[in-house]
Amino acid sequence: MVPNLITALTGPLSELEERILEAAPIIERWLRMEWMEHTPPIYATTRIHNAGFKLCALDVDLFPRGWQRLSADTISQAVLAAQSVIEKLCPEARRLLIVPENGVPDADECASLARLKTIFQMTGLDVRYGSIDPALSRSVELRLPGEAAPAQLVPVERERTRLMAGSFDPCTILLGNELRAGSPGILEELPGQYLQPPLQAGWSVRRRSRHRSYYMDAAKRLGKLIGVDPWLLAPLYEAPEDKGAGALEATRGAADALLAKIRRKYRTYHIMERPCLLLASDAGPRSAPVHTIYDARHITAAMLPAHPLLQEGVPTRERIANDAAEPWVYSIDRYIVGAYYCQHSGDSNEMCSVATHSRFVPMNMAENASILRPAAGETNRFYMHGVIARLALVAASYELEATDPEWQAMQQDDD
Amino acid sequence: MVPNLITALTGPLSELEERILEAAPIIERWLRMEWMEHTPPIYATTRIHNAGFKLCALDVDLFPRGWQRLSADTISQAVLAAQSVIEKLCPEARRLLIVPENGVPDADECASLARLKTIFQMTGLDVRYGSIDPALSRSVELRLPGEAAPAQLVPVERERTRLMAGSFDPCTILLGNELRAGSPGILEELPGQYLQPPLQAGWSVRRRSRHRSYYMDAAKRLGKLIGVDPWLLAPLYEAPEDKGAGALEATRGAADALLAKIRRKYRTYHIMERPCLLLASDAGPRSAPVHTIYDARHITAAMLPAHPLLQEGVPTRERIANDAAEPWVYSIDRYIVGAYYCQHSGDSNEMCSVATHSRFVPMNMAENASILRPAAGETNRFYMHGVIARLALVAASYELEATDPEWQAMQQDDD
Repeated sequence: MVPNLITALTGPLSELEERILEAAPIIERWLRMEWMEHTPPIYATTRIHNAGFKLCALDVDLFPRGWQRLSADTISQAVLAAQSVIEKLCPEARRLLIVPENGVPDADECASLARLKTIFQMTGLDVRYGSIDPALSRSVELRLPGEAAPAQLVPVERERTRLMAGSFDPCTILLGNELRAGSPGILEELPGQYLQPPLQAGWSVRRRSRHRSYYMDAAKRLGKLIGVDPWLLAPLYEAPEDKGAGALEATRGAADALLAKIRRKYRTYHIMERPCLLLASDAGPRSAPVHTIYDARHITAAMLPAHPLLQEGVPTRERIANDAAEPWVYSIDRYIVGAYYCQHSGDSNEMCSVATHSRFVPMNMAENASILRPAAGETNRFYMHGVIARLALVAASYELEATDPEWQAMQQDDD
Repeated sequence: MVPNLITALTGPLSELEERILEAAPIIERWLRMEWMEHTPPIYATTRIHNAGFKLCALDVDLFPRGWQRLSADTISQAVLAAQSVIEKLCPEARRLLIVPENGVPDADECASLARLKTIFQMTGLDVRYGSIDPALSRSVELRLPGEAAPAQLVPVERERTRLMAGSFDPCTILLGNELRAGSPGILEELPGQYLQPPLQAGWSVRRRSRHRSYYMDAAKRLGKLIGVDPWLLAPLYEAPEDKGAGALEATRGAADALLAKIRRKYRTYHIMERPCLLLASDAGPRSAPVHTIYDARHITAAMLPAHPLLQEGVPTRERIANDAAEPWVYSIDRYIVGAYYCQHSGDSNEMCSVATHSRFVPMNMAENASILRPAAGETNRFYMHGVIARLALVAASYELEATDPEWQAMQQDDD
């Protein structure tokens, strides 16, 4: 279920929101059944655009940062979820190692690392930081907000089949490094330790188009269950194949076709918006630029990443002080644990980015975190965000299964 | 782990509290291992006395009421815990039936039933009320606070192997009836439905002395792990055997012996308190009177229940406006979900009771629910309460196993 966070929404419920609230028992049961068969990512941030007529997850980060931006009153939710994941993963655990991005973490990342440490420490684990950065030859002191003594970021080493941070021998390794350069040997084959998320969540393996395809599958199944056109829950997308000299033409062609599809959908639903696309990199990383495209002819060669992905733009209609506000929803395992808005003054189709002039506004817990349905008082207007974020988690669980080398080997054995 | 609730404690940490906070990783790991082997009660209220030198659970109610007294900001904790228990018990669940005490619920109980309904409804279940009261021949309207339409309390019926409330066919039945008169046939043998807590949690089977014995075992194991005398975590007790004409003499004799034991312990620890006993009924119910005894000669025949239990009195040193404040800690499954104080102006050894002039003061979530250890800021002073309540849950899980007819049959097969 979803904590009752205070959103920026004030108007009446949209038809889609009404439908999702009504169908809560069906949705929750469907999710419970999914989690019997599939394993959600250990943690994630899901970015959502709510157009009113349509509500979609646009991207899922499997190495979430920014934990410090969550409202402090949500920490106990995160601790409960972390407790549940540790019980499942490694109940005998005593020690957890957090592996951040390479390099020396800046103040923002230190704050996020400190919050993550707090969460897992409160489940009773001894939590330390270790770096897989080959350029780091000795420990670095990290100034964590609220802590008197600095923490150590220790270069990890391999002792036969175990990853060690000095003498610290972790049971669980929480990866916060999106492995842009591929999966380093030092993390491979750790039979006695739990590495989460698994290596195939790294950007040398992950493809946004693969996620989109599983997300569309999941949206179709959920849409059927609750009687909603899956398009209202999922963006259309296209990953142009041609990588050579014809890449620009191929991408423009694909963009034209995708814009035409969206236009048809808009006509069906009497939507007066101008169709829009996002041009992103299919292969990460988190920081890769995302271009907002209204006309295929505006796509230039300079915009094209090695692996382009075209994705339907969905305007976000949530607003803070007249700015576009994009919900970033945090989860641990199958639990939604908090959220904040990324607020920016640009185009509402645009993806909010830390680089653009954006501001983060935490969503606080509602004082009376009580009731789901308006009949009984206050509606949890964050519920629909929680549903869509978990739809993205279902898709991510399929994605991580499909790219799991062990799972692939098993499938081949079956053939 | 334990949510950071605001207690009435303000002074420095006691030696025992220091030890418990320091040992948090060991304690949490021990509990995780326990829950791999044993199943905690689906819900419970644990009553705690904190003497400073000593911290004990004095009683566990396996059919908790008073849910409405928990601070509203703890509801989302309860929902997360309920979600986890439903996933474990019956993930395909759609319908849950709450069975309250016999009779027509009063306003207080209606408020509690409403809160419980909210919690399980927010996990996506359809929740209704059903009565097993044979005197109830038709549905009764319940006025639930905050709900416009009245709810129905429907007399349950048996349709072959299923319990039905009208046409409502629940997957899970949440029992809130302590079954004083024994387990009614209508609840027996429901192979396709989950009845929780199980029938042996009812007061026709339960014995407080059995709980005390398992609690003492659990305290010994935890005490050994964290280097603490188990007496600091557990009250001494004695259930006098003689039920006949010699019952009064036997009880007085046992009381003298128990007071002597406590006196010796007090001497060892240089405690200046006057030793005290609680004289309670070994066989329930929840409402049975508890007498505070300082001198065995003050025990009278009129005080003696059919099955007396003598239990060491532990003064509660937590205070609200100079009154004694007794923490009542609520759990769902293995999660602590909230707490409040029962405040009364009487003897601090006395058990707080709804009947005496008592007031209930909810514990709110700390604004910054952050850190466990004072080095890093604010200490979670509710942590030790959460540990002791979970110690009582471990004991209750042993107790429910030992009295489980299926488990007993299995043990006999092994012999």
